[in-house]
Parts: sequence; C-alpha cells; structure tokens
Amino acid sequence: MITEVTAKELNTESFINEKVKEIKETVGNSKAINALSGGVDSSTVTMLGHRALGKQLRTVFIENGLMREGEPEQVVDFFRELGVTVEVVDAREDFFAALKGITDPEEKREAITQTFYKEVFGRIVKESNAKYLLQGTILTDVDETVAGIKRQHNVFEQLGIDPQDTFGYQIIEPLIQLRKDGVRRVGKALGLPAELFERIPFPGPALSARVIGKVTPERIETVRKATVIVEQMLKDSGAFQYLAILHEDRVTGMREGRRDFGQQIEVRCWDSVDARTATPTRLSFDTLERLAEEITRNVPGVVSVTYNIATKPPSTIEAI
Amino acid sequence: MITEVTAKELNTESFINEKVKEIKETVGNSKAINALSGGVDSSTVTMLGHRALGKQLRTVFIENGLMREGEPEQVVDFFRELGVTVEVVDAREDFFAALKGITDPEEKREAITQTFYKEVFGRIVKESNAKYLLQGTILTDVDETVAGIKRQHNVFEQLGIDPQDTFGYQIIEPLIQLRKDGVRRVGKALGLPAELFERIPFPGPALSARVIGKVTPERIETVRKATVIVEQMLKDSGAFQYLAILHEDRVTGMREGRRDFGQQIEVRCWDSVDARTATPTRLSFDTLERLAEEITRNVPGVVSVTYNIATKPPSTIEAI
Repeated sequence: MITEVTAKELNTESFINEKVKEIKETVGNSKAINALSGGVDSSTVTMLGHRALGKQLRTVFIENGLMREGEPEQVVDFFRELGVTVEVVDAREDFFAALKGITDPEEKREAITQTFYKEVFGRIVKESNAKYLLQGTILTDVDETVAGIKRQHNVFEQLGIDPQDTFGYQIIEPLIQLRKDGVRRVGKALGLPAELFERIPFPGPALSARVIGKVTPERIETVRKATVIVEQMLKDSGAFQYLAILHEDRVTGMREGRRDFGQQIEVRCWDSVDARTATPTRLSFDTLERLAEEITRNVPGVVSVTYNIATKPPSTIEAI
Repeated sequence: MITEVTAKELNTESFINEKVKEIKETVGNSKAINALSGGVDSSTVTMLGHRALGKQLRTVFIENGLMREGEPEQVVDFFRELGVTVEVVDAREDFFAALKGITDPEEKREAITQTFYKEVFGRIVKESNAKYLLQGTILTDVDETVAGIKRQHNVFEQLGIDPQDTFGYQIIEPLIQLRKDGVRRVGKALGLPAELFERIPFPGPALSARVIGKVTPERIETVRKATVIVEQMLKDSGAFQYLAILHEDRVTGMREGRRDFGQQIEVRCWDSVDARTATPTRLSFDTLERLAEEITRNVPGVVSVTYNIATKPPSTIEAI
C-alpha cells in the first residue's frame, strides 16, 4: 500500500531531503542509472538522483525518433545548465523497425516498451554495471494501471513483475507517493527551469501515442509539425495539457479548387488538476480557428482539424 | 453555359410559372417520374413537378436503409398533407449488399449511385414507362462536379454522359440555375412546410456519407442515433448545416473506471450562405459539452466526441 502525499501537505524541502537520504542509503557505493525523457517526472527524478549520487548516477536520453521538434537538444541543454551531464543514445532505427506495420495501440505500446527496456535501455543498463534504476513513476500511473485504464511501462511492481528477475536491476521510485501537481512543486524546488517543471505531461510512447494507426517516420513528422503549432499557440492558455493527434481516417478537403482526400488532426486541450478527471478547455473560437488555419496551412496533407469536446471520463486525455 | 439566378434577383412567382410551363411543354402527354429524398432540392422539384403534371408525375421515395430516424414516414406524411402521393420502395437489402466490405468513399458513392440508378430506380423507371425524369440538381452541384471536388450523381450532362443513351430517359433539371438559398425561397413559395424547405442540406448517399470506413446496418444505426441528438440540439442554432460523423479510428476511453477502446463521433456545424465557403459555427461550450455528454451517454460504443474547427476550404462540409 502506497501512502499518498498530496501537493497541499507536501513540504518540498523535507521531501527532497528524505528522498535524497533514501536514495543514498539504497545505492551506497554502487552505480545507478536512469533514463531521462524530458518530462516533469523523469526530470525531477534525474535532479533527485543527481543530488543524492552525483557522478554515481548515469543519465541517458534515448532518442527514439518519436520526440517533439528539437526536444533532445533542448533537454540536454537544460540539464547542462544545471550541471548534469546527459548522454544521448540514437536508437531511432530500433524503434521504427519495431513499430513497422503495427496499428493496434496496445501492440504499439508493447513494441515501444520492449524496444526501450529489452533492446535499447536494457542493453545499456547491462553494459553499465549499474545495479539501481531510478524511475519517475507517480501515483496516478499506479492507479490507472491497477484500474486497467492504462498500461504504464514503469510500474512493474504493481503489475506483479519482479524487475530483478526480468531485467536484472532494482527499481527506485522516489515520486511514487505524489501526483503531477506535487511532482511539479518538487521539480521547482530542485531548481528545474520553468520550461521543464511546468511542462505539460507528455506520454511515454511520445509522438507514437499521438498517431492513430501506423507509425512511420513520415506520419511522426506530420504530427510533430502539428504539435509545434499546438504547443506554441496554447502555451499561455493556462491549460493542464494540450496535444495534437494524427488520425488514420481520411477526410475530403479541397485545395486550389480541387478535391483533396487528406488527413485530419484532432486537437485536445484539457483543464485538470491531477489528470484523473478533465474537461476540454474553453478556448475562444478565434484561437480555435487560428489553430485550424495554421495547421492546415503548415502541415502538408492535413485538410481538417477538430477539437475534442468530451470530458474524461468517458474519454481519456490521450487518444491511444 | 448555365446562367445563375441569385436568391436576391429571384422572383419566385415568375420563376415557378416559367418552370411549370417548361415542364408541361417538355413532358406533354407523357409520364414523368422523380425520386424524392426529402431534401430541399428534391422536395422543391417534386412540388414543381406536381404543379405542372399532377397525376402524370409519379414520385417515389427509395428507402435505402441509410436515412435518418423516422425520415421515410415523415417525408411521406408531409407530402400527403400537400396532396402529393409518394410511393415508398423498400430497397434496404440492395444497398447494404452493394456496400458490403467497401471502405473507400468514392467506391461507396459509386456503389450507392449504381444501386440507386441501375438497380432500384432504374428498374422502376423502366417498368414505369415514364420518359422524363425530374432531378433537383442545383448550380453548386455543377460547380463542384466540374471542379472535381465532388461527384454528384445527378449531373450526368455536365460530366458528358448522355442519360438517354445510358439509362433511356431524359432529365429535366428545373433548379439548375439556383443555389441553396434560392431553392429554399422557391420551396417556400410552393407551400412546402417550414420543416422541409428550411431543412438543412443532407447528402445524396445519406448516412453512408456520415460513416468513415465500412458501412454496416450497425454502424449506420450508431451514426443515426448521434444524428438525432445533433439535429435536435442544434436545430435552433441558426446554423446552415450540422452533422454527426462516425469515425473508423478507435480511441481510448473509460467506462466505470476501466479502459474502453471505443468509437468517436465528430460533430460539424457550419455557418454558410451557399455552401461554397463555410466557417464552423461558434457554438457555446455549454452546448458543445452537452452535445458530447448526450452522445457518449446515449450512443452505444462512443467514448469520444470532437467538433470541427476548420473552415471550407480547405475542409469540405461533409467528411467523405
């Protein structure tokens, strides 16, 4: 049983001291490793681990080809500023090869999880001789995994999988009592720049979770371009999360007076405190129309843009 | 070359007199036939034809299984009130058989067109000995067919097909100089009830044009249920047209705390004068959220609802 620490009751200073002490005691003189995605959870864990372990912690950023525009460079730069060295591993070919031909979202997640853990990160971990793995699992991940809503790749223990048997290392999850709002407070207290600790949530499978149907470099590039526009236009909206989804369904459009059977982007923008429930942000129609205009003008092949109007539940925040 | 008559310059009384005279002169003592869909175009043509020809005109309503809730009964009732007898032909099996396994929108339209003309209506026409066929083609259909945006099934002549060679009858198109707003004025002047002449446009392939991907009786029933909700909730919106589209893409939702991989309905609601260009109606978020709530609550299998925010162009009014 995990005891929740709410953002309200959280004392960030004593939380950080306690977790740093725990990590130090657990790892001792061994080596630890962690994978940084650039999301608020893994960024906060990286800072906690860095504070506890310094050079005993090796932090890798796996470039899976599914990240947002300029993301790998940005994340590495942010951490360099904070004195943390991040190692970038180019694994784009591994991921696209694993995703080839897969359309089912569960199989996609599975392919990414397997490629990430067993092939890419698993290999790095084994070669590194690190015995401890730091993970940014939060309480919402545990809840949703237990409820069967989501398959999180970082909650082996809750799924009854022993990571020491399966992958040969031990997992440390210092954020597991927190929800997203608590993690943000801890990240801020650890000195993460606003761009990182205030970052909107981004899913583990990255842009492949934003593509319905087949994942190819071309389709990822399409949703990447739409994501740049959505994130740029909505960054000051005050929303909890905003995202662009590339649909597989084709719809009719017109270009230069002629029929063009093209693609559709769905925009979702959510008001939420902790992602457990959420409602669509009431953006102005000026903003909505500008979003559609920018996307159809600048993203090749897209002729239609929709905005999500369903709440969670019965919807979920991400589409797949 | 067709000379446009704009709604502004249209004198409905003299237009009706002229068209009634033309139809009378063309048909003489022969018989004419027309297919009534219940849309404003075919309803107006039915009234023009009835006024010109009385019992010399036979009007059939083909029940293709793709109509909206209660539509066949409603249309027949409206015309009975106006003294016009409409013959209902049950051809549901023909249409679903022709649509089986087809996902490409062009092939769908083609299957419906072929089933309608060659099989069902073609057979009726041939058996009827009618020499003349009244059609509700309007100028926008001609424009869009010429531009290649849309394949209208009722503009043979503009496509260079001679209907006398192909189907053995001659087409009379009394509305071809008008656009939608002009047709509404003529329909009103001919005594059509507000429910009919003010009806929002509805596509030829009916609900099959509102289903992306495979057309089955189940999927038609899903979009039919969503259509009832959308039309009921938006009928007083003042919009030009509003519609529900069932997507083929599946998205994640949650029901009773568990993951539910379900269907998505897209709502479109348009402001437009003549359908050539259109912008999404700026509905209130109260209305949008209520739409989503009603649809996800009352349409089995639907977990997500979106609202179109792109303009035409580059979008089109219908999705397929």
